[in-house]
Amino acid sequence: MNSDATFSPLFTDLYELTMMAAYQENHMTANATFSLFIRGYEQLNRGYFIAAGLQDALRSLEQLRFSQGEIEYLQRLNLFPGSFIRTLPDFRFTGDVWAMPEGTICFSDEPLMEVTAPIAEAQLVETFLINIIGFQTNIATKAARCIHAAKGRPIVDFSLRRTQGLDAGMQVARSTYIAGFSGTSNVLAARRYDIPVSGTMAHSFVLAFCNDGDAFQAYARTFPDDSVFLIDTRHVLQGAHDAVNIAKIMAENGHHLKGVRIDSGDMVESSRQVRHILDEAGLQQVRVIATSGFDEYKIEKTLASGAAIDAFGVGANIGVSSDSPFLDVVYKMVRYHDRDVRKTSPGKTTLAGEKQVFRRMNADGSPTEDIIACRNEVIEGAEPLLEKVMTGGRCKHPLPSLAQIRAKIQSSLSAIDQRYTSLQQPARYPVHLSRNLSALQL
Amino acid sequence: MNSDATFSPLFTDLYELTMMAAYQENHMTANATFSLFIRGYEQLNRGYFIAAGLQDALRSLEQLRFSQGEIEYLQRLNLFPGSFIRTLPDFRFTGDVWAMPEGTICFSDEPLMEVTAPIAEAQLVETFLINIIGFQTNIATKAARCIHAAKGRPIVDFSLRRTQGLDAGMQVARSTYIAGFSGTSNVLAARRYDIPVSGTMAHSFVLAFCNDGDAFQAYARTFPDDSVFLIDTRHVLQGAHDAVNIAKIMAENGHHLKGVRIDSGDMVESSRQVRHILDEAGLQQVRVIATSGFDEYKIEKTLASGAAIDAFGVGANIGVSSDSPFLDVVYKMVRYHDRDVRKTSPGKTTLAGEKQVFRRMNADGSPTEDIIACRNEVIEGAEPLLEKVMTGGRCKHPLPSLAQIRAKIQSSLSAIDQRYTSLQQPARYPVHLSRNLSALQL
Repeated sequence: MNSDATFSPLFTDLYELTMMAAYQENHMTANATFSLFIRGYEQLNRGYFIAAGLQDALRSLEQLRFSQGEIEYLQRLNLFPGSFIRTLPDFRFTGDVWAMPEGTICFSDEPLMEVTAPIAEAQLVETFLINIIGFQTNIATKAARCIHAAKGRPIVDFSLRRTQGLDAGMQVARSTYIAGFSGTSNVLAARRYDIPVSGTMAHSFVLAFCNDGDAFQAYARTFPDDSVFLIDTRHVLQGAHDAVNIAKIMAENGHHLKGVRIDSGDMVESSRQVRHILDEAGLQQVRVIATSGFDEYKIEKTLASGAAIDAFGVGANIGVSSDSPFLDVVYKMVRYHDRDVRKTSPGKTTLAGEKQVFRRMNADGSPTEDIIACRNEVIEGAEPLLEKVMTGGRCKHPLPSLAQIRAKIQSSLSAIDQRYTSLQQPARYPVHLSRNLSALQL
Repeated sequence: MNSDATFSPLFTDLYELTMMAAYQENHMTANATFSLFIRGYEQLNRGYFIAAGLQDALRSLEQLRFSQGEIEYLQRLNLFPGSFIRTLPDFRFTGDVWAMPEGTICFSDEPLMEVTAPIAEAQLVETFLINIIGFQTNIATKAARCIHAAKGRPIVDFSLRRTQGLDAGMQVARSTYIAGFSGTSNVLAARRYDIPVSGTMAHSFVLAFCNDGDAFQAYARTFPDDSVFLIDTRHVLQGAHDAVNIAKIMAENGHHLKGVRIDSGDMVESSRQVRHILDEAGLQQVRVIATSGFDEYKIEKTLASGAAIDAFGVGANIGVSSDSPFLDVVYKMVRYHDRDVRKTSPGKTTLAGEKQVFRRMNADGSPTEDIIACRNEVIEGAEPLLEKVMTGGRCKHPLPSLAQIRAKIQSSLSAIDQRYTSLQQPARYPVHLSRNLSALQL
């Protein structure tokens, strides 16, 4: 959807459209403000989140248009008043958006975005805003946890085959890259986002030859300076010896083997044995790359057990965030016309009023406390996190590049106290409501 | 991707392309056969799977083309031999495909698809075939489990806001519909696949009015014959009474309230109280629709506890298959040129040879045993499940309609012994290897 000039407003739930029609028929045209946030239940093993997806969200808002075919489809449903259908050709999103920039560390209950627009417009965009921001925030957070666990070792996204659809694969490549991954195997994402692309051979390649050595030699013939040999197709130690033999031939011709990859078995034991074989042969510079079922927990555990792994490829567990495959992101009306509103359903209460989030830092620049406040409050000595990113349906500033978002995440994560970033049972970061905001919740 | 005339071959992992180049440079052009299957580890709570995704998979194979811009991008990577780049404009998938038709009940280790093509072609398509078939099979299976749990009550897909990307939302709408769902809230999917579309109002609509009654009345004015009132925004029992009042006004004008929706709280208790309020008012025909966190487990438990629920809307837990967000689908080379091959990595052993899956039935047409055999075997009294669906890169037959797939799933699931369809710890359906196939695995 990123490269299209228009974004289909039918990427929505039907009820957004029926509500739009009912608002219009009932002459309800005042502005509404909706707040998008991660609902504050106890999030299993998530001490923080990384806000992501804003770029796609804003582009979708700017490009929202009903095509003639879409309007005819809605008409054929025989559901909507003709007066509503006739307004659709001119529909545009004309609202204002406040949001945390991509890469901001955030916490549940804090608005990541607030949208103010005529109620019908603000309503229509609910479904895709939740979808885009929720998914990319979830994946960026998962990836940041992996980076934390890998302690400086590079990680590459290999998840495309098991993401939930191919578009998900694109968003995963982008979200993991901004969170600190070194690259992706996803060629289309690499092209679209200008991300380093990575990959060499699968087991099928090795099986197409009668033995590992023949496969490695053939591969090195085609890619003499970009070879990583997959050594576990038949037997990992024999594979390592075969890799050594071919690496020696390559070296005679002035080429260097970049690495070997292990994709099965006991990673701690295998990686150490393979490292030993490589070192014995004087191939200290050849990296051991591990793949197969890694996530932040397995990375942390494998390294703590003394594995000799230089880099990781991660797949399905990251690409679908398997321990938390969706975030409970919601988009709730907090103000309509001149009235602050909130929902009081059991377990799903929301906070009325337009908001700002303020972050206090200590002298080292490390965050110590967030305060959710009214939009117009000023809290001395605290930094406001929500910026006005769209006015009248147009983006206000040029959006940051991926490199800038990536740098922001890196510096934010190095500044925050490690108590909040542990992978399991992290300490709860303090988030409070300002007195003014509390006073609104009556 | 379904409506495009071409499908990007860059929707792939880089290694598929580097292997293609190395095959070509090393003059390896013979046919290879790859087998796509769900790896046979113990699948938590999945007694069976519903094969899905074949239509999208076959279209992608037919439409695979490198655009000029894509070829230039690959060239700019400075990785591939020029001789390889020069072959890309003419690249087409020219292979043969055997597959289980969409909607076939299947089990792990059974090939859902086998692809035979010149090795470079068969290799390139790995990533997107796994992605498409794996995801749709996973969601169709999850949805069939919900249908089982709901015991005849309609279920609607409300998951779009929390699917992993918007394209995933499209695939979820289609996959849940073929598995028996009544419709979707996803308007674009409803249009593309001609699925009934469903939805009325959210809490924001109710909050835009000062009380529930005003909101319901306004909605009924616009949609007099298509109203479902959301009654839990403020207090569910008061909401039910307000719904009754408006329903009576509607009835005076010859219109009927279709239903009320409950989205929070204790579903068993609330639904019974609401049913009672409706019945007392003579509104027996008004349906109680329940949403919020439902999956097959919660549907089964809520109904077993005596809830008075007529229909369900399901969201995130189904749209991401939260208890099993990916299937371990793999695509493994089983034959190259004149040689059957297999991988013997620990825990990841595969079965060599081109295959057919045979199903035995008892006199009632209920499946009793599957046999994975060699492609050319004949097993008396058993039905072969894999059909030749593509020859020389072109689809052989018109593909079945969604209605046909849906009917097939419904009849298959009613025929299979309920031991295999229980939601938790189902019995293990017997899947054996034929003697001939076993003899190949040496």
